[in-house]
Amino acid sequence: VPTFKLVVAYDGTQFHGWQVQPGQRTVQGVLEEAMSEVLGVDGIRIHGAGRTDAGVHARGQVASFSAATRVPAIGIRHSLNRKLPDDVRVTASHEVSDAFHARHSARARRYAYRLLAQDDVLLRRIAWRPPRPFDAEALAAAVAPLEGEHDFISFRAAGGTESRTICRMATAKWSAWEGGVRFDVVADHFLYHMVRNLVGTALAAASAPDPGAAMRAVLAARDRRLAGITAPPQGLCLEQVDYAEESS
Amino acid sequence: VPTFKLVVAYDGTQFHGWQVQPGQRTVQGVLEEAMSEVLGVDGIRIHGAGRTDAGVHARGQVASFSAATRVPAIGIRHSLNRKLPDDVRVTASHEVSDAFHARHSARARRYAYRLLAQDDVLLRRIAWRPPRPFDAEALAAAVAPLEGEHDFISFRAAGGTESRTICRMATAKWSAWEGGVRFDVVADHFLYHMVRNLVGTALAAASAPDPGAAMRAVLAARDRRLAGITAPPQGLCLEQVDYAEESS
Repeated sequence: VPTFKLVVAYDGTQFHGWQVQPGQRTVQGVLEEAMSEVLGVDGIRIHGAGRTDAGVHARGQVASFSAATRVPAIGIRHSLNRKLPDDVRVTASHEVSDAFHARHSARARRYAYRLLAQDDVLLRRIAWRPPRPFDAEALAAAVAPLEGEHDFISFRAAGGTESRTICRMATAKWSAWEGGVRFDVVADHFLYHMVRNLVGTALAAASAPDPGAAMRAVLAARDRRLAGITAPPQGLCLEQVDYAEESS
Repeated sequence: VPTFKLVVAYDGTQFHGWQVQPGQRTVQGVLEEAMSEVLGVDGIRIHGAGRTDAGVHARGQVASFSAATRVPAIGIRHSLNRKLPDDVRVTASHEVSDAFHARHSARARRYAYRLLAQDDVLLRRIAWRPPRPFDAEALAAAVAPLEGEHDFISFRAAGGTESRTICRMATAKWSAWEGGVRFDVVADHFLYHMVRNLVGTALAAASAPDPGAAMRAVLAARDRRLAGITAPPQGLCLEQVDYAEESS
């Protein structure tokens, strides 16, 4: 039975997140349904690299599945895109080794969180305007302490069940985009609501006299109560998932 | 009776354009309805600086109206935003001189048209991905002949009724944005579908051996049949309308 890897992009606005839930429109649900039609096989289970929440977007979500089919990988992509609604696109499909699993094989994930400097009706579906103005330099100082290996449990929302709370964060930096500033963050794995909590905490720390020290204090405390608010979902996008060469 | 100027932003996706049409959801219609509720006056007529087509967006549409009200301008803005749907926002409101008219008083309009270098499910509501790849340098060469005063009748779609087809184009240039390239164009006035026809023609001219010469030939011919296709509406945004200081 061959195994396939898909790269999936979606506008999360109209989805109740990635994961299948009875009675809800989810990306996994829509994909599995389209896949069953394309391959003529019922009950295909698709595994995603990241379980994005309701309203969160993806440009580079990765999904894997195994199915007894002779349809070539490229044909699966084109057939799926014909069945799928406009707000989900399969941007790549490959046959991969049997050992490949979208979540377990992932080495790193890259997320982006976009802030609006002012309200913008064109960009508000993909970005968040915080209630107070922000200072780009203070935000940069606030996230500088995050790079490296740390216990990020202070940034895990209630309901998170990850047993390993230490993450290796390769990148945590802000850059300019059309609407304001954008937080790019790369790590081996992420805890529940971690990126959105990092953004909320960075905004709070940016108002402190020493934004870097304020962030270090939250990180060291290992206490969710010290972190800032959870930034809303629409600013978040799963941009990319990386794998070791041999597994993808 | 005081006269007011509003700056209006909207996501055009769910609108049948600016202008009131029976049985259609239009920006003018939605604004006039909200205005009547806010001011408690029926039949207020709002004039827009540009009659954007179905699917076209605006960040800086300007509208004017006169109404016998003692509500201050700032109050009109806030009250309207409470009544208006999420995809229309009033970003400014001022009381202006009686002589002010959003369309007749306008000195210049700035439009932007966004092209996607690759399909992007997050940006496809505000940009267009042309069927063939494009070359940014060739696009720049293609639009260089447009700046200055010219008869733009080759770029007016059937149905355009403007008596004056000579426009003074202050700016016509491409720049990079997150999704690909963006065409910024400023002129004293525009003909029916002119920006979208300029984009379609620029894409065709960019494939010619001499893109600038190809564009000059279309401009000189004064013949719509020589121009390129009309690029679709979702890439277009009315970014700004300028007035003489004293009138606004």
